[in-house]
Amino acid sequence: MNVNGQATRPLKGDAQRGTLQVIDQRALPHQLQWRPLGSARDAFVAIREMWVRGAPLIGAVAAYGLAMQARRDASDEALANAAQLLRGARPTAVNLAWALARMQACLQPLPVAQRAEAAWAAADALAEDDVRINHAIGQHGLLLLRGIAAGLKEQGVVVSAQRPLQILTHCNAGWLATVDWGTATSPIYQAHAAGLPVHVWVDETRPRNQGASLTAWELAQAGVPHTLVADNAGGHLMQHGQVDLCIVGCDRVTAQGDTCNKIGTYLKALAAKDNGVPFYVAMPTPTLDLSLRNGLQDVPIEERSAREVTHISGRTAAGQVVEVQLTADGCAAANPAFDVTPARLVTAFITEHGVVLPEEAALRQLKPTPASLAGSAAS
Amino acid sequence: MNVNGQATRPLKGDAQRGTLQVIDQRALPHQLQWRPLGSARDAFVAIREMWVRGAPLIGAVAAYGLAMQARRDASDEALANAAQLLRGARPTAVNLAWALARMQACLQPLPVAQRAEAAWAAADALAEDDVRINHAIGQHGLLLLRGIAAGLKEQGVVVSAQRPLQILTHCNAGWLATVDWGTATSPIYQAHAAGLPVHVWVDETRPRNQGASLTAWELAQAGVPHTLVADNAGGHLMQHGQVDLCIVGCDRVTAQGDTCNKIGTYLKALAAKDNGVPFYVAMPTPTLDLSLRNGLQDVPIEERSAREVTHISGRTAAGQVVEVQLTADGCAAANPAFDVTPARLVTAFITEHGVVLPEEAALRQLKPTPASLAGSAAS
Repeated sequence: MNVNGQATRPLKGDAQRGTLQVIDQRALPHQLQWRPLGSARDAFVAIREMWVRGAPLIGAVAAYGLAMQARRDASDEALANAAQLLRGARPTAVNLAWALARMQACLQPLPVAQRAEAAWAAADALAEDDVRINHAIGQHGLLLLRGIAAGLKEQGVVVSAQRPLQILTHCNAGWLATVDWGTATSPIYQAHAAGLPVHVWVDETRPRNQGASLTAWELAQAGVPHTLVADNAGGHLMQHGQVDLCIVGCDRVTAQGDTCNKIGTYLKALAAKDNGVPFYVAMPTPTLDLSLRNGLQDVPIEERSAREVTHISGRTAAGQVVEVQLTADGCAAANPAFDVTPARLVTAFITEHGVVLPEEAALRQLKPTPASLAGSAAS
Repeated sequence: MNVNGQATRPLKGDAQRGTLQVIDQRALPHQLQWRPLGSARDAFVAIREMWVRGAPLIGAVAAYGLAMQARRDASDEALANAAQLLRGARPTAVNLAWALARMQACLQPLPVAQRAEAAWAAADALAEDDVRINHAIGQHGLLLLRGIAAGLKEQGVVVSAQRPLQILTHCNAGWLATVDWGTATSPIYQAHAAGLPVHVWVDETRPRNQGASLTAWELAQAGVPHTLVADNAGGHLMQHGQVDLCIVGCDRVTAQGDTCNKIGTYLKALAAKDNGVPFYVAMPTPTLDLSLRNGLQDVPIEERSAREVTHISGRTAAGQVVEVQLTADGCAAANPAFDVTPARLVTAFITEHGVVLPEEAALRQLKPTPASLAGSAAS
């Protein structure tokens, strides 16, 4: 997607030098800062410290991290150690483990001398697969949005610039969370490009404010009409008919369709159910974890630093970005970073293979591995 | 309640001088600043700009505002104008209109020359009634908490310092929102004083952060164990059995029990219902508006400035309180300040008269006017 009119992705690999540049997402929306990563350790830090975040993107960065390791020492042991390090950077999104497993499956059969080159190509392939997956999610999602608009028309509501299709999203499942397009935003970007008028309610998404800092910024860059709201506001908007549908991303989806995503997603899903608003989860199949069933019991929920709740960064009137403390000294805070939305609250998953009901049989039929990667893994 | 061990209320009247000092709640938790109010206009500004907030407290400040007007010009016209000004300061909490109506009912029958003195006494009586009401809410609430603890014991869970009764609250319905005790916090303070171990999950309460800035600060001053969480976290906590009950305040309750309170309350009520967690509303009867039935249709919801969402104040490492911008320039934001929780999601109301089910017949039987005020109104 574009930044100031320039096609931009949140990461840029340099195969020649074996380095990766990533947008430091902590600095947005105030500054667009690129940071170079030159090793698996750098990639680990970038993921753990959330310079990069979003399930698909951390998978891709981890893949490049392993590729950077392969250029230094591609022995089984070195790769296993690097993969272990990277896998531990964050616990919840399954894409991290998925990407590393795919990379290792691709590299392990090869002679050590060939691994460096193959690893970079495999990371590139993984990244390009992510772009294709997300584009396909957007295509399926666009049809869905058109269908919802058609349904509104039958009720006498004509979607127009004055009365756009009203979509609520939580956190950032935008292009910044992926290699391109985003997951939840891909249908939105494609609808906007196709001339279907949309307006997005952007949940601020405390405590890290990925909605306010990232999603609102992305949508502004793409010229998509949007309005920021506090996380508390979505239920009220739905009660008053101001939301036609919700689309969110996901960090891990279990075989029965329980959806782990940014903390607060569950509350919006409850409100959607209570108000008859469809609640869609944009799910690339690498986010599907068929090894788990009960999301509430089985998905590990990352507990992050209390400081993310008690402090916040922003820009002063003088243009300086500073961190301020919101609470009295010594205030205890808890910070679970994700929650699990039970499958019963999900209307459907928008996947690269189509729109799928939250039913185990349907989810188990999805091919969780993109073809090109399955190919490299087998090669 | 105490501040640094000193008994403190959020307002101090001086009948001699006809002035009121109020805590400027915008400066908390970083600074305890008192501000003098000398006129109805001052009271209007203090309410509108949220130096004071909370349904019971703005009712009391408005009453003193009218009393300050009565010292200057107590004619029918002057009082009516001042009451109209004050009533318009904020639209949602019914206590404002209620307090002004009570004051006017008390003053109108009197000769103009007697009104100044009578008005101050009536404002004092209203404030003292608020204290009594909230103390009574605490007494009834304490019984309820003991009952819930007893129920847990039957399930083999013994409430102790190690496993306190877990209460979630939203926004600030503490003593800072009232003349003393608070509404939602009154049972908590009384339980703590009675030796029943409690722990409070404090919702941050965006966008104005009254939970983080006020409730957490109050509880810390009172030594009540508590943990601040983002508004997004409550559902997750309930899913994992970490909340035994919710208690919130209210700004207006309709005859059928629909409860208007700080934006986001509805989402917590949905989560409570979904997880079998009792959801109590602490309701002083002056907050009951029997003239309305359907809360979703009939309660006016205040839309506040977008700046409350896009900007925030906090303390820098150097100790300076500054406002910072969270969003990119030009980011549109919406800021509905309240939402309505349908009666079906409320377990019961904790009132000064006892614990009452959310049923119209029961609510209509509540005496909405404290006896002492009804007395002054009749005199």
